[in-house]
Amino acid sequence: MLFRSPHIYEMWYSATHTSPELLNDTVYGLPEIYRTEIKPASLVANPGCYPTSVILAMAPLMKTDLIYKDSIIADSKSGISGAGRTTDINFQFAECNEGTRAYSIGVHRHIPEIEQELGILSGKDVKISFTPHLIPMTRGVLSTIYVNLREVPKTGYLIEIYNEFYKDEPFVRLMEEGKSADTHNVIISNYCDIGIKVDERTKRVVLTSAIDNLVKGASGQAVQNMNILCGFREDMGLDTPGIFP
Amino acid sequence: MLFRSPHIYEMWYSATHTSPELLNDTVYGLPEIYRTEIKPASLVANPGCYPTSVILAMAPLMKTDLIYKDSIIADSKSGISGAGRTTDINFQFAECNEGTRAYSIGVHRHIPEIEQELGILSGKDVKISFTPHLIPMTRGVLSTIYVNLREVPKTGYLIEIYNEFYKDEPFVRLMEEGKSADTHNVIISNYCDIGIKVDERTKRVVLTSAIDNLVKGASGQAVQNMNILCGFREDMGLDTPGIFP
Amino acid sequence: MLFRSPHIYEMWYSATHTSPELLNDTVYGLPEIYRTEIKPASLVANPGCYPTSVILAMAPLMKTDLIYKDSIIADSKSGISGAGRTTDINFQFAECNEGTRAYSIGVHRHIPEIEQELGILSGKDVKISFTPHLIPMTRGVLSTIYVNLREVPKTGYLIEIYNEFYKDEPFVRLMEEGKSADTHNVIISNYCDIGIKVDERTKRVVLTSAIDNLVKGASGQAVQNMNILCGFREDMGLDTPGIFP
Amino acid sequence: MLFRSPHIYEMWYSATHTSPELLNDTVYGLPEIYRTEIKPASLVANPGCYPTSVILAMAPLMKTDLIYKDSIIADSKSGISGAGRTTDINFQFAECNEGTRAYSIGVHRHIPEIEQELGILSGKDVKISFTPHLIPMTRGVLSTIYVNLREVPKTGYLIEIYNEFYKDEPFVRLMEEGKSADTHNVIISNYCDIGIKVDERTKRVVLTSAIDNLVKGASGQAVQNMNILCGFREDMGLDTPGIFP
Repeated sequence: MLFRSPHIYEMWYSATHTSPELLNDTVYGLPEIYRTEIKPASLVANPGCYPTSVILAMAPLMKTDLIYKDSIIADSKSGISGAGRTTDINFQFAECNEGTRAYSIGVHRHIPEIEQELGILSGKDVKISFTPHLIPMTRGVLSTIYVNLREVPKTGYLIEIYNEFYKDEPFVRLMEEGKSADTHNVIISNYCDIGIKVDERTKRVVLTSAIDNLVKGASGQAVQNMNILCGFREDMGLDTPGIFP
Repeated sequence: MLFRSPHIYEMWYSATHTSPELLNDTVYGLPEIYRTEIKPASLVANPGCYPTSVILAMAPLMKTDLIYKDSIIADSKSGISGAGRTTDINFQFAECNEGTRAYSIGVHRHIPEIEQELGILSGKDVKISFTPHLIPMTRGVLSTIYVNLREVPKTGYLIEIYNEFYKDEPFVRLMEEGKSADTHNVIISNYCDIGIKVDERTKRVVLTSAIDNLVKGASGQAVQNMNILCGFREDMGLDTPGIFP
Repeated sequence: MLFRSPHIYEMWYSATHTSPELLNDTVYGLPEIYRTEIKPASLVANPGCYPTSVILAMAPLMKTDLIYKDSIIADSKSGISGAGRTTDINFQFAECNEGTRAYSIGVHRHIPEIEQELGILSGKDVKISFTPHLIPMTRGVLSTIYVNLREVPKTGYLIEIYNEFYKDEPFVRLMEEGKSADTHNVIISNYCDIGIKVDERTKRVVLTSAIDNLVKGASGQAVQNMNILCGFREDMGLDTPGIFP
Repeated sequence: MLFRSPHIYEMWYSATHTSPELLNDTVYGLPEIYRTEIKPASLVANPGCYPTSVILAMAPLMKTDLIYKDSIIADSKSGISGAGRTTDINFQFAECNEGTRAYSIGVHRHIPEIEQELGILSGKDVKISFTPHLIPMTRGVLSTIYVNLREVPKTGYLIEIYNEFYKDEPFVRLMEEGKSADTHNVIISNYCDIGIKVDERTKRVVLTSAIDNLVKGASGQAVQNMNILCGFREDMGLDTPGIFP
């Protein structure tokens, strides 16, 4: 994570920022958005799993006038490994298995990180509703995102915008019309799959975004950043397809 | 399910309604809303799992002026048993295990059932966004519902409204402030747990609603309706607590 | 657990027995074997989950001359709740999910408890091989037991012996010929299901024994013992059928 | 699979062997045993998952005089993908999840395949008890194997024998003393992990053997065979480490 404003950091993390002098030289390590800035950077802040899945799904739309930018609601579902390798009783097998729950509604620390980046992309302040959920599986994050449309284009038109936006990206894949993203297809890979569906009845677009939280949502993205920094082939060490089942 | 209008049924189910003459004598079997009508009914339509979880979570708010009634977004997560005991390859173990996916975005057949009932409760037409998801667990439905607030009350104020609305209900439980609903707590029981959280930053209320889809979301509710119809104690055969783990 | 010999306890538990004077007044709380002794007892030692599943499966055969009593091998599979509600990293969700492993091969503390009871039943010393395994599920123990036969009866003959032995038992169910025990059928219940299969090729009988480790393997059995002690109906509070799925 | 005797095939599979003339030119594709014969072969029979896990675990001991070769009992635990991508109701999510069961006790079709190969390795007829179990996980086979010892060596001595036997094998790994095999460590890899434990009390050795049934137990092994046949590097396309979690 990287907060342009130490104040935002301190508010959400209840901690004093100890190195504000480094902020100016730090780049937010989402290569699809900041590749040019990452290449010469001296410090890269690796994004978290939830921000990666939400920002990649929203970036192309944030640059258009098609949506109400203050209407974004992201409902995310995460496998238990998202909590890290912890002895906390809440992540014990029987506490997580065979059930699902929301947590940190409206107060999760990834909210300011997402809002900052969506704000930069759109050029104005953005506030989102974000609710993470724990799902009884080891890996994977699926974000389902709801956005109000100013006008109601065809789904195919939005898919074209996304395909154009991500046309040179090795790790972002757009689902064909009628399909939504499924974490099964990205596990053990660095891919982010994005599905798009315009709901004409409600004048909303519903986006689905799937990553493996331990790869594109964590160390895989760190490797991708390192590859860029070091001038390596960007997909070096990251060319595994998703593995299913 | 029960559609007041055969036309709505035929549009969403692509089938001709074969018994429209029965509609007038049929009651929608959600006891918390229609107990009085169920008692003397000759035909009771048992609600599905998703509608039960969403309608119970929204009913008290639909009767107030606190919310924008056209802003409701319900994101639901269901265990695999929601698909029934089917040989469909999509519900085979390895297809469902260790992954999650959305389906039927904006077109699920439970949408008109939910819209009809929320519309009746509020006295005006309602359109909702509803996205069901498959979660790798056997039982349980969790619905996370986002609603824009006209004014922004304290969470505690809304909890009071809900406690009053459901004060005589044996099977609806309100979570205390700061807690959200968790399907772990309702499995093998007929309870519907509802959590409420006002997010002042975004001027939304986020509701969580958990049921066991095979009990309150299916046969348990049918038993509850039968008990009412037959004049039995309403919780007869339904007095199991949730079982965890 | 209950060890007739403090020495055996001290050897397997590496601890000094602090109340050897209580041993004479203590009964091993397996009602199917010790009901008469439990009734007037002042202290009842509740059996563990593995011993319950193995001893109930073996008891009828231990009283016959059909088997080689020194050839018993019990291979047990347990859900993770068998480890208790612990923060130990080994029982964290991602450590247990999607994999299986044996542990404590030949040295598990339930071995002397099983050997003592099988020895008492047969009237001679018994040594068994016992291997517990962790299975990625919350509840349930399945023990698969291999025993060399002196002579090779038909499976049906053994089922008759078991049916006779357990004919008055409310919580032991014999599988019909051709079926083996399945933990799915006993979860949330106090039942122990036993399957029997004679393998004529190898002159062995293979037994399968399924319980819910949290019920018949723990507190359910404790309630059953309390009911006997207090003169209550033995299945009071224990009359739930297994719940599946 | 490959049966030297069409008669054995016909007995266990209840089918007429349609190409007995090919048997002489066919090699059993377990590279660790038949590498020399596979290289020039015109037809290679790829072993099943259970036979791979059991034969690799037993091969070194079958060549010694340390064990009673008629005492082998293999208790195997398999993930659900072992059943293939099938619509059979028995492999539907809710039928498999949260429970475990044995099946085909003493009659599974992999028995004659295992007996044939262990017989060839030891130079005499072998009969084994083999019980497969379904475990609620997608991938992985763990076989726990019990063998009576003629004399009782130290565990370390047997590990040395195994290390020597498999010293040039890229895909067989011996666990260090005190550890048993765990399917978590081999998932998504072509490894077979083998654990060895001598139980001096019962004069038995207990072996644990873990593979990914979809890799070393199926297509991974087929690729390994193809590499040998075609003169490629044997681990080409198979150099993934296990992935955990």
